[in-house]
Amino acid sequence: MIVQKYGGTSVGSAARIRRVSGRIADTVRGGTQVVAVVSAMGHTTDRLIALARQVNAEPPARELDMLVANGETITAPLVAMCLQGMGVPAVSLTGMQAGVRTSAHHSRARILDVDPRRLREALKQGMVPVVAGFQGVSEDLEITTLGRGGSDTTAVALAAALGAEACEIYTDVDGIMTADPRVEPLARLLHYISYEEILELAAVGARVMHPRAVEIGELYAVPIHVRSSFHRRPGTMIVADVPMEERNRVRGVAFEKEVAKVTVIAVPDKPGIAAAVFEPLSEAGISVDVIVQNISTGGQTDLTFTIAESELKRALLLVEPAGAAIGAGGVHCAGDLAKISIVGTGMLGTPGIAARMFRTLAGEGINIEMISTSEIRITCIVARDSVEKGVRALHKAFELDQDAA
Amino acid sequence: MIVQKYGGTSVGSAARIRRVSGRIADTVRGGTQVVAVVSAMGHTTDRLIALARQVNAEPPARELDMLVANGETITAPLVAMCLQGMGVPAVSLTGMQAGVRTSAHHSRARILDVDPRRLREALKQGMVPVVAGFQGVSEDLEITTLGRGGSDTTAVALAAALGAEACEIYTDVDGIMTADPRVEPLARLLHYISYEEILELAAVGARVMHPRAVEIGELYAVPIHVRSSFHRRPGTMIVADVPMEERNRVRGVAFEKEVAKVTVIAVPDKPGIAAAVFEPLSEAGISVDVIVQNISTGGQTDLTFTIAESELKRALLLVEPAGAAIGAGGVHCAGDLAKISIVGTGMLGTPGIAARMFRTLAGEGINIEMISTSEIRITCIVARDSVEKGVRALHKAFELDQDAA
Repeated sequence: MIVQKYGGTSVGSAARIRRVSGRIADTVRGGTQVVAVVSAMGHTTDRLIALARQVNAEPPARELDMLVANGETITAPLVAMCLQGMGVPAVSLTGMQAGVRTSAHHSRARILDVDPRRLREALKQGMVPVVAGFQGVSEDLEITTLGRGGSDTTAVALAAALGAEACEIYTDVDGIMTADPRVEPLARLLHYISYEEILELAAVGARVMHPRAVEIGELYAVPIHVRSSFHRRPGTMIVADVPMEERNRVRGVAFEKEVAKVTVIAVPDKPGIAAAVFEPLSEAGISVDVIVQNISTGGQTDLTFTIAESELKRALLLVEPAGAAIGAGGVHCAGDLAKISIVGTGMLGTPGIAARMFRTLAGEGINIEMISTSEIRITCIVARDSVEKGVRALHKAFELDQDAA
Repeated sequence: MIVQKYGGTSVGSAARIRRVSGRIADTVRGGTQVVAVVSAMGHTTDRLIALARQVNAEPPARELDMLVANGETITAPLVAMCLQGMGVPAVSLTGMQAGVRTSAHHSRARILDVDPRRLREALKQGMVPVVAGFQGVSEDLEITTLGRGGSDTTAVALAAALGAEACEIYTDVDGIMTADPRVEPLARLLHYISYEEILELAAVGARVMHPRAVEIGELYAVPIHVRSSFHRRPGTMIVADVPMEERNRVRGVAFEKEVAKVTVIAVPDKPGIAAAVFEPLSEAGISVDVIVQNISTGGQTDLTFTIAESELKRALLLVEPAGAAIGAGGVHCAGDLAKISIVGTGMLGTPGIAARMFRTLAGEGINIEMISTSEIRITCIVARDSVEKGVRALHKAFELDQDAA
């Protein structure tokens, strides 16, 4: 049994719904049980949100969830009736009917558990359950939505609850690439990637799969197959262990533009300082990305962090008073930055990877403003106008344009 | 406490939703508790059905219900969030959340009962429940829809379950008129009408309120106020007893075009004949309207009935073999007919009403093809091209253009 998830582009019109249904029908006729999870058609969600803002500039989250959940509950019966028209028994289910129980946090609910009874019942009767993704129900029977990447999360959670063989995520790209092909034309499709690697890639900007879905996949050991809904070629398998011959190397180059940095200068080096700076940002819902604090000299240190450039103004209004309160020397900021990362579990314990990255960027005349590393990732903050050049240089330097085998 | 129902035209755009919400807010601020019931916006339901037909020419009823129910569950949160933006606490509820329990007959479910606990809870907390009309939930937690007039039925059923003072039906007309104002410019608004009268009017073509909703109103003695959502003037109150001074007269003239008649000639006058003719029609879902069978002469009689002209071909295919089987002399048919009726409880036991109707039509040179009467209605079948002239003549003859008082 497999779970197949079809995103908004894949179900964006009646013609595309027929194609998706044909694909499900083929899988069923091939002898595999299928549970389908579907997103809202095309721009339906955006249109519903726009409508909401026309009646209330700040729509309350509970009502917005009630509203946008309709996007997926429109697609699900359309796919189910299309399948039935093709002679494949099918039944559409809302998140609630499919047993997706969530926390009560509207617009960003977490799946608490899945009660798969109704799904199993439908499968036992030879039917394809077509589940509205992105939504669930709280203990109080309120309709909730799961936020960004919600339908992926639904799909992987159902696969985990049902013990499915795999979860297929159908999307409008071929799979996970070694780099964004719009920037690096030589980018290659990765046949395998580990949960850890894709989590690092997603966190730095390669947004094919949402981290939440990957985390559930990792936790319950659900293999996730990211593939195109426009052709039949296999895409990328996200698994715990990448096959041996694909391992010992950097797996991909990711980047993110629209980065700004904020530096709190001459901060007294004592406990509680970082908390004083970052707590107001967290409360305001501003995501801080890379944080760098160097060793202290003379009892003082500089604390630098990056945020999305669009949040810069709002962040400064919070950081400046916080800096003053802790006796910092001042707050500087700069925009027009970008982030480049190389990712790969093969980096672990392989000497020279970081040095090669820095040398490659230097060779292109790219200055590195900040450096941050994890066990399987090295990130450099650079000037925004150098990011494409840097991505291409790194892709070549780490031989990502050549086949793994 | 009152229940207010807003139809598809009244909530057809963001601007109209704001107007409807303003109206609810005014009522609440005036000290009256409100439960709102809303339909799908404008042509949403039609669009969803068109989409369904693009993926399955004959969409299965269960999936079609899942699909079209989204129309109402889009409107409800929009109205609730608009109210909240105006400072009026509100909460949208699906049919299921509002406790509307129905039979399992998809696309034409009947309301079995309403569990008003959640509605009462919301009202107790000072909130306006905004309920998605037209839908409910079966015992198996399947989403059902109520068919034609469904949102009206939801509204009156909620009013009955909550013991509301009245149920207001907001629509795009001023209320119930003495005749269709497009045909008779002198038509007047009726301030009161009885449940019986409006049932007769609806049955003969004046389709402002669906009979199902009126029947529930009559059964539970819920006064129904049919009024315009475009202005604040009162419309028509549907009640058990019309005030004395408005009673002793014909209340309205209704008509229906697109009528065809079928006559089964020289039918042997014995038991079971009518059943043999009408059962096949009933099984085919063809509604028979007026039925006339005169006294038999020589052991034979003619049986005539009317149907919608669009059903004529299909009906003949069923009636002709049925006629042959019972030894009838043949089957004749004619189209291009129309139906004119006068309705009023005041007709009951008032001599001369029928005679005046026939004389009026005769005075206009209109030939009467068939006559059918109930206690509070007289119906004549006439040539279609004489129907407008007939309506206007009857409206004048029964002084419907003059105020009741």
